[in-house]
Amino acid sequence: MKSKTEHLTFNLPTRMGFLNITPEVERIVRESGVREGLVLVNAMHITASVFINDDESGLHADYQKWLEQLAPFDPSPKRYAHNRTGEDNADAHMKRQIMGREVVVAITAGKLDFGPWEQIFYGEFDGRRNKRVLVKVIGE
Amino acid sequence: MKSKTEHLTFNLPTRMGFLNITPEVERIVRESGVREGLVLVNAMHITASVFINDDESGLHADYQKWLEQLAPFDPSPKRYAHNRTGEDNADAHMKRQIMGREVVVAITAGKLDFGPWEQIFYGEFDGRRNKRVLVKVIGE
Amino acid sequence: MKSKTEHLTFNLPTRMGFLNITPEVERIVRESGVREGLVLVNAMHITASVFINDDESGLHADYQKWLEQLAPFDPSPKRYAHNRTGEDNADAHMKRQIMGREVVVAITAGKLDFGPWEQIFYGEFDGRRNKRVLVKVIGE
Repeated sequence: MKSKTEHLTFNLPTRMGFLNITPEVERIVRESGVREGLVLVNAMHITASVFINDDESGLHADYQKWLEQLAPFDPSPKRYAHNRTGEDNADAHMKRQIMGREVVVAITAGKLDFGPWEQIFYGEFDGRRNKRVLVKVIGE
Repeated sequence: MKSKTEHLTFNLPTRMGFLNITPEVERIVRESGVREGLVLVNAMHITASVFINDDESGLHADYQKWLEQLAPFDPSPKRYAHNRTGEDNADAHMKRQIMGREVVVAITAGKLDFGPWEQIFYGEFDGRRNKRVLVKVIGE
Repeated sequence: MKSKTEHLTFNLPTRMGFLNITPEVERIVRESGVREGLVLVNAMHITASVFINDDESGLHADYQKWLEQLAPFDPSPKRYAHNRTGEDNADAHMKRQIMGREVVVAITAGKLDFGPWEQIFYGEFDGRRNKRVLVKVIGE
């Protein structure tokens, strides 16, 4: 069994935002030499997501509006108990649960085995600082 | 390490619907010859899900009603920016995030290592056309 | 390829609650002898979750309040069709979809490859009885 591990660092300029990280994951899979296996891609921070969806800016705007409705940003101590601890990001912990922590993608014949529109995104809900994503390839 | 890959195709007759695909996954695991390992099952389309839950029609009706409340179908260009691009399925991209893209299931002694009620479903949110599910088995 | 499987049993004293199971998963990874690989941790019941987030009691209270708003407990036969079958836990099946069934975590140099605040939780939405979590390690 072969394996390869890499930790990527991202710093998004906004509180919430999505970044297409498919090229980075493709590079790591290629460098791993794995032909048949799995790649795990996960946020290492608990106010961020890794998810697979469409690279369409209208959809991304819709996601942001929708997530804000489901779990509004509110730094006051009133709405969220977590924001009585000195934090202001309780909403980000919720948005991350909706969008998910991780994806696992099949590697077939040395490539990400993707449908026509699948792209991997880093989803940031408490940005403007360095945060990490883990990529782990296993297989043969 | 052994591996086996199969792409299944489904065409659900309704916009939203759930299909129990456990027998198909069991067959692929059996054919793989893997005794100890993992199987990844994921939607290859970004308006569909693979998830594990109960095979109970009342619950499935509840899920559909609940998802419709959380992310209503609305083909007009007003609610969703994505639906200004010629698409009408922005809601399906959201429903899929709630229900998830994929499941990873343990294989123990050659079988899906399941609790008493676990069943694997294909979840469709923009149906009436061919869509694919990937099954990838790895292990020994 | 090495593998190790263990089924853990939990019995939470409340209907809804979260339990930090990171030490148990760390022990199983250590005992597996796997240095590079993956560990799958999943609820074996369909009214429970395994998820990764922060071990902060205020946040956990916020999650419970938020999940109750998104999918209210209601044992009456009026709101949920599932609760016309003799069950009272339709809400728990929904809460579990928001929080997720499983996590897959990288093992690097023999340890869970975690960010600074990542902890693994068992999430219970229909407690007061024995329920199981599966831990499956694969790698080398």
